[in-house]
This record gives sequence, C-alpha cells and structure tokens, in this order.
Amino acid sequence: MLLAICGGPGGYAQELMPAPQQVVKRDGRLPVRLGFSVAVSGPADLRLYAETARFVKRLSERTGLFLRPDDSAGAAAALQIVVRRKGKLELYEDESYQLVVNDRGVRLEAQTDIGAIRGMETLFQLLSGDSSGYYFPAVEVTDSPRFAWRGLLLDVALHFMPVDELKTTLDGMAAVKMNVLHLHCCNDQGFRVESKIFPRLQNLASDGQYYTQADIKEIINYAGQRGIRVVPEFVVPAHTTAILVAYPELASVKKKYTLQRYFGVFDPVLDPTSEKVYTFLDKLFGEMAALFPDAYFHVGGDENTGKDWEKTPHIKAFMEARGMKDYMQLQTYFNQRLLPIVRKHGKVMMGWDEIFQPGLPKDIVIQSWRGKEAYYSSVKKGYRAILSNGYYIDLIQPASFHYLNDPVPDTVSMTKDETKRVLGGEATMWSELVAPETVDSRIWPRTAAIAERLWSARSVRDTDDMYRRLDVVSLELDGLGLRHEANRAVLLRRLAGGWDVQALGILVDVIEPLKIYERNEGDTMYTVFSPLTKLADVAVPDQRVPRVFRRWVMEFFGKEDEIMKQLLIWKNNDSAFRVLLARSPVLKEAAPLSESLSALGEIGLEAMSFIRAYRPPDEEWSQRSRGVLAKARLQSGRCELQVVESVGALVERARVQ
Amino acid sequence: MLLAICGGPGGYAQELMPAPQQVVKRDGRLPVRLGFSVAVSGPADLRLYAETARFVKRLSERTGLFLRPDDSAGAAAALQIVVRRKGKLELYEDESYQLVVNDRGVRLEAQTDIGAIRGMETLFQLLSGDSSGYYFPAVEVTDSPRFAWRGLLLDVALHFMPVDELKTTLDGMAAVKMNVLHLHCCNDQGFRVESKIFPRLQNLASDGQYYTQADIKEIINYAGQRGIRVVPEFVVPAHTTAILVAYPELASVKKKYTLQRYFGVFDPVLDPTSEKVYTFLDKLFGEMAALFPDAYFHVGGDENTGKDWEKTPHIKAFMEARGMKDYMQLQTYFNQRLLPIVRKHGKVMMGWDEIFQPGLPKDIVIQSWRGKEAYYSSVKKGYRAILSNGYYIDLIQPASFHYLNDPVPDTVSMTKDETKRVLGGEATMWSELVAPETVDSRIWPRTAAIAERLWSARSVRDTDDMYRRLDVVSLELDGLGLRHEANRAVLLRRLAGGWDVQALGILVDVIEPLKIYERNEGDTMYTVFSPLTKLADVAVPDQRVPRVFRRWVMEFFGKEDEIMKQLLIWKNNDSAFRVLLARSPVLKEAAPLSESLSALGEIGLEAMSFIRAYRPPDEEWSQRSRGVLAKARLQSGRCELQVVESVGALVERARVQ
Repeated sequence: MLLAICGGPGGYAQELMPAPQQVVKRDGRLPVRLGFSVAVSGPADLRLYAETARFVKRLSERTGLFLRPDDSAGAAAALQIVVRRKGKLELYEDESYQLVVNDRGVRLEAQTDIGAIRGMETLFQLLSGDSSGYYFPAVEVTDSPRFAWRGLLLDVALHFMPVDELKTTLDGMAAVKMNVLHLHCCNDQGFRVESKIFPRLQNLASDGQYYTQADIKEIINYAGQRGIRVVPEFVVPAHTTAILVAYPELASVKKKYTLQRYFGVFDPVLDPTSEKVYTFLDKLFGEMAALFPDAYFHVGGDENTGKDWEKTPHIKAFMEARGMKDYMQLQTYFNQRLLPIVRKHGKVMMGWDEIFQPGLPKDIVIQSWRGKEAYYSSVKKGYRAILSNGYYIDLIQPASFHYLNDPVPDTVSMTKDETKRVLGGEATMWSELVAPETVDSRIWPRTAAIAERLWSARSVRDTDDMYRRLDVVSLELDGLGLRHEANRAVLLRRLAGGWDVQALGILVDVIEPLKIYERNEGDTMYTVFSPLTKLADVAVPDQRVPRVFRRWVMEFFGKEDEIMKQLLIWKNNDSAFRVLLARSPVLKEAAPLSESLSALGEIGLEAMSFIRAYRPPDEEWSQRSRGVLAKARLQSGRCELQVVESVGALVERARVQ
Repeated sequence: MLLAICGGPGGYAQELMPAPQQVVKRDGRLPVRLGFSVAVSGPADLRLYAETARFVKRLSERTGLFLRPDDSAGAAAALQIVVRRKGKLELYEDESYQLVVNDRGVRLEAQTDIGAIRGMETLFQLLSGDSSGYYFPAVEVTDSPRFAWRGLLLDVALHFMPVDELKTTLDGMAAVKMNVLHLHCCNDQGFRVESKIFPRLQNLASDGQYYTQADIKEIINYAGQRGIRVVPEFVVPAHTTAILVAYPELASVKKKYTLQRYFGVFDPVLDPTSEKVYTFLDKLFGEMAALFPDAYFHVGGDENTGKDWEKTPHIKAFMEARGMKDYMQLQTYFNQRLLPIVRKHGKVMMGWDEIFQPGLPKDIVIQSWRGKEAYYSSVKKGYRAILSNGYYIDLIQPASFHYLNDPVPDTVSMTKDETKRVLGGEATMWSELVAPETVDSRIWPRTAAIAERLWSARSVRDTDDMYRRLDVVSLELDGLGLRHEANRAVLLRRLAGGWDVQALGILVDVIEPLKIYERNEGDTMYTVFSPLTKLADVAVPDQRVPRVFRRWVMEFFGKEDEIMKQLLIWKNNDSAFRVLLARSPVLKEAAPLSESLSALGEIGLEAMSFIRAYRPPDEEWSQRSRGVLAKARLQSGRCELQVVESVGALVERARVQ
C-alpha cells in the first residue's frame, strides 16, 4: 500500500540526511536477522566489495547480531546490489541510486559502485528497531546529488591532523555523501607532505609533523574506498613561509625565514621574476601531481599582500618594464606561468577568488571565499566555480546559516549554462584554533547540514527539521568514531580537574566561542603553541540548550514550566561551579560567565513572577535587569553566553504586559 | 620545615602512582606561571629535549597557561634538569631520579635522561591547583624502580590495533613509569608485521591489517622517546596458522591453511624436522631482529598440542630415531635449533613457560604465565624470569588481585641471587574479546596498579589507597587521550540508540563481563568477526559502584542512608531501562539483569525496613529473597551483576538480627 509520495520539504523519510530526491514509503518491513548478507552483481570496482563488508560490520556492531562477511549467498542474500559499471573517482561521476526495500529483501541499483555506496549509507540510516527486533522499513528511494562537488576542506597546515583523524573524517563525510576531501597541505606554519625531491620542506619546515608519501597513499586509498576524491592544495605565491624556510632563495625578499608561529596574513612571498621559482614549482608540483591522482590541483593564490613585491627593487623593475600597474597584475603573470606547469602534469588548476583576474583561460576552477559577487561574476564570465563563502565552519556560525546558503539561490537569475558551471561547494575547516582533540566538534554534526544543501533539492530548507535530523546524524557520526561529543567530556574533565563535571557542563552548554574572526583578536592572541584545551575549546557552535530555550521563550504559552525549570537550574549553578573553580584555576576565565548565567536565571525567574502575576515590574527592577543583561553580554575566556537575548525577551515581556 | 618522612604504605605523597621509594614533604610551593620553562644540563640523549617540550605542552594544556617551548632560559628556568649521561634503552638501565621542589624552583637530577623522564612524570602528578593558581608543592622525592622489567603485552594479532592506539598506550605506560611494550605480533588469526623477505605473510595472512616496517619504526621511535623498549614476539612452533597460510610447506601436516577465525588452541604447527623451517626462521627472525633493535626477542613457544606432530609419520619417525618420549622433547629439540638462530642475530631468546625444559642454556628468559610453581622453579634453576601469571588483565579480575600479586612475595624464600633473576613482570592484554574501541577499558586504569607493584616497594600494598589513587591516575590517563572512559559513553549511546543513556548507565555500572575464560565459553562463541559493541563490551572490570556499595554494606552504621538511596535508584531503574529497550533490541540480553537489579533494590529496601524496625522477616520473605538472589546470580549477555552478594549480606543481616 502506498503511504506517501514525498520529495521536498517535510516530505522525505523521517531520519534521512541528506534528504533524498524522492522517497516513497511502503507498507511492511525487512527484519534484519542472523545471516543477513549482501550480494553484488555487475562489474563493480573492488571498492564496493570492501564497502559491503564494512556495511555488514557496521550493521553487526549496531544490532549486536553476529553477522559475518559472506559473499557466497548469491540470490539468497537479503541485500542485492546491482551496478552497471565501475565508478571512476572523478568529477561528474554518476552517484545516483535506487533503493527498494520490501518484506522480501533490499534491492539497490546504481549506475556505478559509487552510487551504490551512497545508497548503502541511505539504507544504514533507515535501520530501525522496536520490540520485535531490527528492521529496514519498506520504502522506495530514487536519489542523485544536486551538485557534483560536495567537499570539505581540512587545513592540516596551521595545525597538523594525524592520519587517523583524516580517516574518521572521511567516514563522517561518506555517511553524509560528501565526495571531495580538499587537503590544505602547506602554509606559513608548516609544509605537511613529504617531498622526496625537496626533503628540506618536511625536514626543516614541518616541526616533524607531516605525512609521508605512504601516509598520503593510505589516505587517498581510504577515501577512494568510500568514493571520495582527495584534492590537494599547495598554496602559492603567498602563505609560503614554510617553503621559504626550506628554500630561502625562492623568496622575493632574500633573508633567513623561520616558521610562522602566529596565524594571519603575512608578507613572505615567492619571487615571480625568478626562473628558479618556476623550476622549483614544476618539480614539486610534478611530484605532488603524481602522488595525488585527482584531476584537480589547487594552487591557492589567496591573501598576497604584495608588500614584499612592491618593496623589492628588481621585482618593482620587472613590473615597470612590463607596464604592470599593481601587484595583482604581477600575480596574474605568475598564474599565467603557473598554469602550463599544472597542465603539463595533467591537472586542472584551481585557486581561490584572487586568481580570478583578466588574462586567465576558462578551464580553471575558482573557489569562492570572499563574497557572492565575485562568485556569481566568475560563473557569469564562463568560469566553473565552487562556493565556500558561507561555508566557513571554523567561524562558529550556526548550522542554519550555512544550511540556507544556496550555491544557486532562487533569488539570483542564472542561465542554464551558468548554473551548470556551479560545481558545488566546500565547507572549510581552517585550523588556527583547533587541535586534533577539538576539530571534530567544529566539523560535526554541522557539516551534515552543508552536505544536505549540496546533495538535496533546493526546496529542502526547513531549518527546524534540519536541526531535528542533525541530532540523529550526530549520533550516527558518534558511533562511527567521530569525537565531537566524546571529547567534550574529556575536555570538561580536564578543565574541572575531576570526574564530576555537571556544573561546568551546564555552563558550557549555553556558551559559544566568539564568532567570525573575533576570538583571535587582531591575530595576536594565539600561536601554534597555545593550548586548545580551555573554555573556548570545549564550547561548541550550535549549542542546543540556547536554541531550545529560545524556542520556548518565543512560544511561551504552554512552555512556562520548562522555562522556569531551566532558569532555576541556571540560577543555582554558580555555587556548584565555584566548587570546581576552587581547585581548577584554569576556570577563572569562566567565572564571570557563570555569575552572569546565575544572574540571568534570577532575573528570568523574577520576570516570570511578574508575568504570572499580571503585574508589570517597577522601574528599579527594569533598570537592574538591564544591568544584568548588559553585563551578561560581555565575553570572557573568548566566549559569550547564548541565552542573554532570550532572557531579555522575558524581561521585555514582563515590562510591556 | 620538614613535614613528614615517608616511604612505604600510606606514607607516599597523596596522589602519586606508582608510589616513589621516598617522599619528604616540605613547606611551601612553586607557583606555575606564564614563562615556566625547562633547562637541561648534562649529556642527555635528544629524547629528553623532546620530552621536556612535551612536558611543557601538557602543563600548558592542563593549566591553560600559554606556555611555549623555550630552551634559552638557562639558569632562569623554573625546572632544572641535570643528567650525568645518555640513557640506553636496555634492561637494567638506571631509571633513578631525585626531585626537589621548593619556592624557588624544581631540580630534577638523574643518572640518565630516562631517569629524568620518570621524574618528570612524578612532577606532573604533583601538579596542584587552588584559588591562588597552579603550583607544585614543595617536596623531596628519591626514587628508583624495584624491578627492571615493567611491561605490558599488547596482543595485536587476535585483534589488530592501529598505530595511534599503540601511541596512546605508550603515553599511558609512560605516565605510570612502565618500560617495556611487548608486541605479540602474530598468531593463528594473522601476521601483523610487514616482511620484505616473505611478503606473503602480510599479503595473504593479515586480512590487510598489519604494520608496515615504517609503522614499526615509528612505534619504536615513539616508545624510545618515552624511555620504553619494544620487545617483539613471533610465536613458534604452534599458534602459527597465519604463517602456514602464507607458507604451507612449513607445516607438519601438509595441506592448505586458512586464517583461524576462532580463538583458542589449535593443532597447526611448524615441522621441526624440516630444514626449510630453520632456514625460514633464520631469514624471518634476522629481518625482524634488525627491525626491532631491542636485545630481547620473544619466540613464544606456548600451547603446542603436539597432535600434528604425533600424527605425522615422518615426524613420529624422527622422534623415535632420537629416542624422544613425547612431543615436549621434540619441542626442546626445536628450541635448541632456534636458540643459535636467535643468538646469531644478536638477541637474547625469551619464551613462555613451556620453553623451560631440560636441555636449554641459562641465558634465555622465561615468561611465566601458567603458575607460580614453574616460575619459582625456573628462577631457582638459574633462569631469569618475568612474571605474567596473575597479571592477565584480559581476564577481568579486580585490580586488587593483580596488585597483591608480588613477583617476590615475602611468603617465598629466595636467595639474593634468585631474587636478582626475577626481572619483573608484564601485564598481558590478549585481544580475543577487545577491539580498538574497547581495549583501553581493559588496560586502564588497572594496569597502573600493576605498574605500581613492579615499581614501588613490596610494602606498598594498601588496596583501598590503591583504588583511591587509581581514580586520580585514571583522570590523568583520560586527559592523555586514553579512551577507557570516553568510549564508555560512545558504546552506551550506540547501545541505547539515543543520547539519553542514564538508565543504561546505572545498569552497566553494576555489571562486569564474565571472568577468566568464561565469557567465550568453550572458545566457540566469538570469532574475529563478532561485534564487540554489546553489553559485555561496555561493562568493564573493577566497577566502582559495586565496590563502594560493598564497603557501605560492610560498614553499615552511618551508611544506611547511602545504602537506601542506592537501592531505590536500582529498584526504579528497570522502568526507565524498558523505554530504551523498546527501540534498541540489542539490549534484550540486558533485560534479565535489569529486572534482577530492580528486584535486588526492592528486597534490599525491604531488608533495610526489617533491620530498622528491629523485626526479623518471616520465612516466606526469606525464601522469596533467596529466590531473587539466586536469579540475580545468573549471567545474561555474558555479564554478571556485581552487587548480589552485598544485597545478600543485607538480607542476611535482616534475618539474623
């Protein structure tokens, strides 16, 4: 019996993320029982066999059933996968699939094994349980991605990330059907990939923290297994202090360089007038192009200050001789020299907004980070583009903000051809302020919202429903080994210096780190040595408690009890917090926030009394409450309370009744 | 002012583990402030400089102070380290140190940099905090280990453990001053180290799960950095199915072999009459001896059933021709052939109890696992020995049991020479029933108790105090990245299928997996594919709640309120548990335990009523309570409730009053 035809907002299966293009719920279910197995037919790549084994293992670990990989079941297998051809790890590869679950079995059909892998993730999300046992509900899913490029940039230069961190990140990406890991391999703080031709790069300019070529192959193989491409970025000509530490002769300003310990934008830059630089890049990029098999090769190109060019006589002379008016024209010249090098090694060149300058051919890909104007304009001028502006997950903005950031919004008119040139988008995890211990808490579960934006229909944009499903996906990611939740507890225990972290947890649940670029004010507060184990590190974006409290306050009627219960918890929390503070001086920076939270709880409760008594407060109370609210807005420990405006709304409600 | 001269039970500094040989507390403290730095003088190995940087990083991460590595402070550095010579990573190396903390600074003196590294761990454990900030309390510590060999065997063959798991394990070992990681590299289920000479070993007999030689070098380097030796074990002649999968021509019974998927003792065994076997072992051990630089090389030698020898005509004939009465004599012959091979590659041969047979020279080292008799006897016969019997941490026995297991107990008379031949001991983490996700929860924090047994004085044996300090060390290990606590939450969430795990946690807190060899009954229940994500995997040894509850019941007077509060929680827990069960069928096996816990809570409360009313219960109640206790003793999900006898004691107290 047909229960519902879905697709679009509110219509997709309850827990799926990203929402498939079409879901038809049917009556019935397929029980998952001992002996559950998978059969593959069609000319699949070997990766599919490994992925079916991984699927069975995950199913076994979730259900507790003692399943074993078994490829001898044939037609008797509960899950039948049919693919038409081997998938290729390349842009535009077909990732569509059809999934049919009924009482007798599951049939998963796809053009390629990569599509089948996407379909298996959908199937895994469908797994349900009740008193009769585990089962897959009967359903028909027809699905394919809206955009071909659904990426995550992981910056392993500013803070290095171990191989295992990359592997779990890839597991998380696969779970939400992302297909590009963009590795930001070097920057002023370090060069993170072993070069056999230029070993000084890793030996002198990595603090010993780099991937061997064997590591890189392992990562690429692990990604490929999940149908994920790995695109490397070697940023030039600026952000190259690490390269200049190893090879100072390539610099515009000749001097001894040391690794940059701060984060930000710096002047060191390659010398675009030196043939040595192009010879070096030819060899280095040749080596890296061979190591990273993907067809796309990212050369950065961003944030050149131009200062070291403009102050260096021979470079200035070079510009004048060629009639270049500013350093951007010199950078275009540099890019024009770079392009044949990248092409020679069989790659398509990618770069950030800044490489989009007159004089470059149309086969390059622009990754847009600075704003929508440049992005639309590069698409309109015939370039292919990837959107990252609006997907900067390091900036601690809410998932809903990223979610509603459409690469092709319905408010912008684009021709069909222009739309086709929008390849997709990339979430960017810059690592100034994250260590391996905390990076997952910035990426997950939020990136699943971006993954949905890039996979699902434009019309899927109900943020409440997104947050509801994000909680579900978050649990799946937690079970996959991502540490966004598990490490919260570790950080809390370290901060509290003990096992009892309840009071600290209640406080941390309502604070977030300063957003955008505020936390590291003026780029002067943090260095690569700074501990990332403090209040602002355990505080995460998208806190749930403030979000839920805000909703209660907005609804208000029927929510009074919840509101008052919550306010009472906050009011009483500071005294318990002070017990922790007495033995953990590291919490000193949290004390003003804890005090303010307690005060917010108190004035919130008072406001509720006025409201419930239908009695407006006097002016003295109003003034005192404004004082509490103002104080509660102050940052401390590079964090801010997220419930001030909600309590302020209660105060206002009391005042204007 | 001298506050206390300590040493021995109860006298060591409050939180130190292992307890130092002598601690003298002084008056005063050294505040830890911004700019805290370390200076090293004397001819230290480079490892010490890396370790001081790691120390500063840990200090920074714990205190939140923005410390930076700085080796320019010289005499102004707060921590002055003085060493006399470079330490060597070898048995008997000097690990002693002296630590003096006063108001002006810390002075850490040691013969070797390895001793200095041990002292830094003590210093880190001394870190304290109060409202004035972080500080080291003034103290004088004089310390050295009781035994030279303080090891942990990690079995990476039965279940493979990733490199990162080994690294955090090494961090944990270093924190409690252990100095040998014994890697059990191969067994019937897999061969886990890349051989360049015999690549079929890893290619055909590892399921793709093995360490490359680069990985091994990385692990050895990481261990060496912390003053930890890595001793490899390549078990022969039995437990060699993996080798025979790759090279069946080496087998006693010639046939095609497949990797063993079960755990236990199996018949496949090398052919001791074949010269090919010795040629193979010469080459393989030569390669591995070069890869693992330690002077000791473990050849296993355990659990040969002898069946494949006794049933094979040419081997039987070989034995008869040499007048060998049983297969053990043939194994001695095999060992006699093995010994010159191991020696030729510059190594001292080690093996399990079974290699201790007449006819082997005295320079081998016996690792004792089967019982104390064989152990004492090998020491008395002139062999050097390592105790593992009593340190089998995979068997889920209490830490107190391991703690009181002394390698040279005062109940045994040994000459001074005999005592000297006791090198120390090794905790053994066999991995039949652990995955990377759960292995930490079996090793930690319990292994710290064994580490103390092997480091501290024999007289340090107060188990209550050990458990108290174990809680402190456990938190330190948690902060270092060990996952014994963090993954408990992950496993609970996966089992509960949701974020709210309170009811499940209350149940899991009072159960432990079946002990000794009961869980995997008859070696027939688990295979290498079995999920290790179930009730028996989240249940850990040494549960604290039952231990504390037992103490309350024993003390009783003054603890009645705590007892009743706890009983009430248990009584009410089953209804909350059933809510989880309704969506998580995997919890079905926990339901009988949850029911029993609830029933225990109920009869416990009833018993308390009788006791408080000075009124003995009637026979009907006594009979019913006996029924509840009997039912509560039944295992379910390979686990047992740990509070049955304590509730039983309450029932008994009610009955006999």
